Amino acid sequence: MSTDSETETAETERRTDTKSNCGASNSESTADTSGSSCGGSASTEAEAGASETAGTGSSSKCGASNSSSNTTNESSSSGCGASSSDDGDEEEVGATVDDFDSAPGRLVAVGLGPGEPTGMTSRAKRALAESEHIVGYTTYVELLPDEIVEDAEDIYDTPMCGEVSRTEEAIDRALAGNDVAIIGSGDPNVYALSGLALEILESKGATASMVDFEVVPGVPAAQSCGARLGAPLVNDTVSISLSDHLTPMPEIESRLHAVASEGFTIAIYNPWSRKRRENFEKCCEILLTHRDPDTPVGIVHAAGREDERTLITTLGELEALGEEEIIDMTTTILVGNEETYVWDDRMVTPRGYETKYEY
Amino acid sequence: MSTDSETETAETERRTDTKSNCGASNSESTADTSGSSCGGSASTEAEAGASETAGTGSSSKCGASNSSSNTTNESSSSGCGASSSDDGDEEEVGATVDDFDSAPGRLVAVGLGPGEPTGMTSRAKRALAESEHIVGYTTYVELLPDEIVEDAEDIYDTPMCGEVSRTEEAIDRALAGNDVAIIGSGDPNVYALSGLALEILESKGATASMVDFEVVPGVPAAQSCGARLGAPLVNDTVSISLSDHLTPMPEIESRLHAVASEGFTIAIYNPWSRKRRENFEKCCEILLTHRDPDTPVGIVHAAGREDERTLITTLGELEALGEEEIIDMTTTILVGNEETYVWDDRMVTPRGYETKYEY
Repeated sequence: MSTDSETETAETERRTDTKSNCGASNSESTADTSGSSCGGSASTEAEAGASETAGTGSSSKCGASNSSSNTTNESSSSGCGASSSDDGDEEEVGATVDDFDSAPGRLVAVGLGPGEPTGMTSRAKRALAESEHIVGYTTYVELLPDEIVEDAEDIYDTPMCGEVSRTEEAIDRALAGNDVAIIGSGDPNVYALSGLALEILESKGATASMVDFEVVPGVPAAQSCGARLGAPLVNDTVSISLSDHLTPMPEIESRLHAVASEGFTIAIYNPWSRKRRENFEKCCEILLTHRDPDTPVGIVHAAGREDERTLITTLGELEALGEEEIIDMTTTILVGNEETYVWDDRMVTPRGYETKYEY
Repeated sequence: MSTDSETETAETERRTDTKSNCGASNSESTADTSGSSCGGSASTEAEAGASETAGTGSSSKCGASNSSSNTTNESSSSGCGASSSDDGDEEEVGATVDDFDSAPGRLVAVGLGPGEPTGMTSRAKRALAESEHIVGYTTYVELLPDEIVEDAEDIYDTPMCGEVSRTEEAIDRALAGNDVAIIGSGDPNVYALSGLALEILESKGATASMVDFEVVPGVPAAQSCGARLGAPLVNDTVSISLSDHLTPMPEIESRLHAVASEGFTIAIYNPWSRKRRENFEKCCEILLTHRDPDTPVGIVHAAGREDERTLITTLGELEALGEEEIIDMTTTILVGNEETYVWDDRMVTPRGYETKYEY
């Protein structure tokens, strides 16, 4: 898809653009950090997955593309810049609030909900329409409705890595006076970037109030997938990510033990990648120590996207599906509790009405 | 607001209407159960609260109003019908699938998201626009955009009680050949009616496929409230309802112990009602046995509605707020984990990026 020459052009354009959009007095350092330090295992692992799908983590998949609204759909997946490092995990934040001369603009974190544009709220659409710049992971940018893309003054997207640098880019653009939206699928509060945005703002000596920081919620993957499966989650529910990139695996295991022994239904995010298939196996093993192998389990792959697939199976069968295509980083798995049953191809978790009412 | 005479009229109209819309051969029995058995402690206790606010549970608040699209906004809160029972908890389902002669219509459970209409997804709006009948709790019907209300052929709403009879009414109307939407705030899979709809369909000898049963997800209260508070929930999170109407309190306590001792952030639904203030006290006590009194806690009352209020406090201060107006059944409480902090009037739960990146 992308050639070296395309890559170089994209990189050059991005640097130019970063400079002209942000106006930070150390724009060179900003450009360095926002684009070129990418290239590691930093993956968004966010709502509804879509990141780290291949688990390659190679620097050739990384980099940033910065395109005007008219060329976004042609934006190439560029390689990392000159100073890319192979060991990843080393993104540094550059400019501080003192490097910007203009009055700050606004920063809004917008949750797109599930893949299809009809899953967005009116408020999310309005927030994007009112933003001059839209910043996001390439896959999420591709989910945007055409009219949003066409109306945006500038769209900055990076593929498959670099959520720290991408978030910083959004913040720098806001501090430089632009109205900026940073986007993600699902909800900004579910394994997503609202927290990172606040942390980076703080590290720059800025405040959230300075950029009128706002979060526009979206439909999380657990809800998008639950709806496709019927009524699996109507009672107390927990969300757990199996990614140990930012949370140590012993903590994840301890959390799984704690909730599997209670009556929670469980939404599992980021269930599998080639780099850590053993986390998924361990998860299945823990769940089976507390729950019957016949416990219904719903699997939704790529909810709201072209390759969406849905399967209802049992806990006993789950681990064997780990190597199948239906389970990857775009998959959400919903594990029933001891009362969940399957009826008419749907999962049903009773809320308890049947104990109080006759029907 | 409502007079006895208004009430009687509404009740008569409803019965007539139920008969004419459903065409069930035992429409009299349907009318009995869908309207007149209401009047007990059956409360929706659903997403974003709004039910059981006063905790009176008196039969005078119950009943159904059935209004044409032109008069919905004038619909009165009618009293219960003649056969209302004071002990509640006794709603029975009437007609079975064999009582309907027509080809079935469709049934869709639609999540409205937070209170404001801009929080709805395009898909939810389209589902409502395509439905001939809309069925819901009065407070939720009042949240609908005007154009939806004006376009609907019929709207059936019941105030403050009767989710079983209301859900059955929706199902009967669908089985009678109408395209019906049953609505709720938040998401149909979060303490809401998607499961009950499937259970009642089954009890009637119908199937979900027969009415093309579909769930349209919405933004849950945890996400609506999380967005208002900043980034309190970006890591593993659990939702727990403190209502022991359908779940025994010992189970709720056990679940609270299990998750409070792990690193989950906790979204507490249905935190308080006059009838069970001790559940809230017990919850605070359990959380304090596992977490520091300084743990940040966010409180959002009536998210997206006119009386919305937001407060960030600490776990140590939480119990004392139980008697304040900010905490009732329309409130969602978000409890931070041991890493959550407050910065610039926002809650921030780090995802762990700071352990891997420099910023």
